[in-house]
Amino acid sequence: MANNKGPKIVMIGGGTGSFTLLSGLKQYVGDITALVNMADDGGSTGQLRDELGVLPPGDVRQCLVALSNSPKVRDLFNYRFEEGTLKGHAFGNLFLTALEKMTGNFAEAVELASVVLRISGTVEPVTLTNVKLCMYTPKDKKIIGEHKIGRMRFKNTRPKFWLEPKAKLNPRAKEAILNADMVVVAPGNLYGSLAPALIVPGIAKTLKESKAKKVYVCNLVTKPGQTDGFKIHDFAEEIERLAGCQFLDYVVFNSSKPNEQLLQKYANDGEFAVDIDNEPLKRAHYKAKGADIISDTINYKRKKGDLIARTLIRHDPDKVAKQLMRIYFS
Amino acid sequence: MANNKGPKIVMIGGGTGSFTLLSGLKQYVGDITALVNMADDGGSTGQLRDELGVLPPGDVRQCLVALSNSPKVRDLFNYRFEEGTLKGHAFGNLFLTALEKMTGNFAEAVELASVVLRISGTVEPVTLTNVKLCMYTPKDKKIIGEHKIGRMRFKNTRPKFWLEPKAKLNPRAKEAILNADMVVVAPGNLYGSLAPALIVPGIAKTLKESKAKKVYVCNLVTKPGQTDGFKIHDFAEEIERLAGCQFLDYVVFNSSKPNEQLLQKYANDGEFAVDIDNEPLKRAHYKAKGADIISDTINYKRKKGDLIARTLIRHDPDKVAKQLMRIYFS
Repeated sequence: MANNKGPKIVMIGGGTGSFTLLSGLKQYVGDITALVNMADDGGSTGQLRDELGVLPPGDVRQCLVALSNSPKVRDLFNYRFEEGTLKGHAFGNLFLTALEKMTGNFAEAVELASVVLRISGTVEPVTLTNVKLCMYTPKDKKIIGEHKIGRMRFKNTRPKFWLEPKAKLNPRAKEAILNADMVVVAPGNLYGSLAPALIVPGIAKTLKESKAKKVYVCNLVTKPGQTDGFKIHDFAEEIERLAGCQFLDYVVFNSSKPNEQLLQKYANDGEFAVDIDNEPLKRAHYKAKGADIISDTINYKRKKGDLIARTLIRHDPDKVAKQLMRIYFS
Repeated sequence: MANNKGPKIVMIGGGTGSFTLLSGLKQYVGDITALVNMADDGGSTGQLRDELGVLPPGDVRQCLVALSNSPKVRDLFNYRFEEGTLKGHAFGNLFLTALEKMTGNFAEAVELASVVLRISGTVEPVTLTNVKLCMYTPKDKKIIGEHKIGRMRFKNTRPKFWLEPKAKLNPRAKEAILNADMVVVAPGNLYGSLAPALIVPGIAKTLKESKAKKVYVCNLVTKPGQTDGFKIHDFAEEIERLAGCQFLDYVVFNSSKPNEQLLQKYANDGEFAVDIDNEPLKRAHYKAKGADIISDTINYKRKKGDLIARTLIRHDPDKVAKQLMRIYFS
């Protein structure tokens, strides 16, 4: 760890938004704990869960990589096999899976991977229960699985979500929240990545108890079929509905206009930049902080062998980190 | 590296005999280079070669593990998946394969793995050419593949072996031999593990040129269909026939009698303790050194998920290492 001074920051999330935030924050903060949702069941991760009964390695891997200080091992962890029976597997997923099978303990697997990757900070599964995300459709049909739910269309409803079997909050995750100076809810797939973390029983109570400043970094674009028409306050409200309590002190959102061509490209896919709803934000119980926090670099390359499509309107790791530090020191 | 003083030792081999020697030698020697045969094409290794076109990771992995100073990562490298599409793969094989695919360079893959495993010494592929072991049967039928050849019966002939495509001696392997104080040919599967290392073009010339003391640690038991009736001198003679030159200064062999029950168990499988042929050994151009170098521990446990059957009459790592050190200091 390069730097253990400064604030204790806990980040809640999973997925690419978390990756961005962690990459930025580690430049300024030594004591970061990434709490990762454990409901991922798509792609390489889903296959490993199905075939080997392990906890989902994918999002944990991304957070480990974001916090790593070893460029080569970092590339290795994200490397995906392109041929044969290993096709599509990220090497880091196999690493975590082998360690979990060997030690019988996912938490120990993550700890050892942290040493190999020389990470700043800590990555903790939000729960160690092997859970699946579940929801009811408007017609009361039960849907099981994050991957499946991620492709559903909700038709302007706000569905009920829960985890099966009942998740137990990882005691180390609880402790991290209670001891934190700042808790950041990362941007990301609202129902696919954030919901499975926020609905773990006990999270809400712990967030209320913690004296940390609680900040949500809002998404940049809407997701078709799920968050169509959502403005900043809608996202924030939904975050609190999922957690089951009002806990946010700050909401950080982007106030600069993305590149027009990119916006057009997104619009073709039914995705739109999240609008700023000034009135609700003024009345909100949290402080809303707008700033230019998007990346100027638009030529983001899709990696060979990477099965997940990436968006091109992205948070800038350093800009977001600086906003968060400003809030911490305010 | 714990200790860089003392002799520079090069070991030639692959397989379990090499593992034993390296485990023993690393207690006394800091500067060990393990030169590993690159013709393995069975099991997990064979599948990775076939599917991904990589160099064979299996024997390299075993040598890395033998030299590692990190017990947990060592266990991880030897961990074999037991279910699903990953079944039978040693994790370390996947590690080396991912690194080779990522960097496009097997030598670099081994180097990075060496850092992660915190090894004493160096592991070098004897060649970086992606070769297959070939041989002619007595009836001039060409057989391709180490795994296949390992299960052939030679009927008391001594077949001709070669590598396809023509192997190029790894320049770093050559340098290691030239700079060594002692070169040890490890015990092991004579035709399956040692031949593919010894027949690499250029090895013989380099061995002759090197001022190192050259020692062969002889096998303990015969292999049915391949080395039936072989005595110490037969093994040594065959080592030199394969290399294509007389280069041995010493042959170390076991002179103590293995446990009677074990011998019986082996005999049932057609395997017999290698006899000592005193007359040829006296006339030989090398010095033959007999000593008790077998392990007293006989309850060797077969590891779960390990697909390779292990023999129970084994060299004792420390006893062999001490014999070798005695020769070095003689």
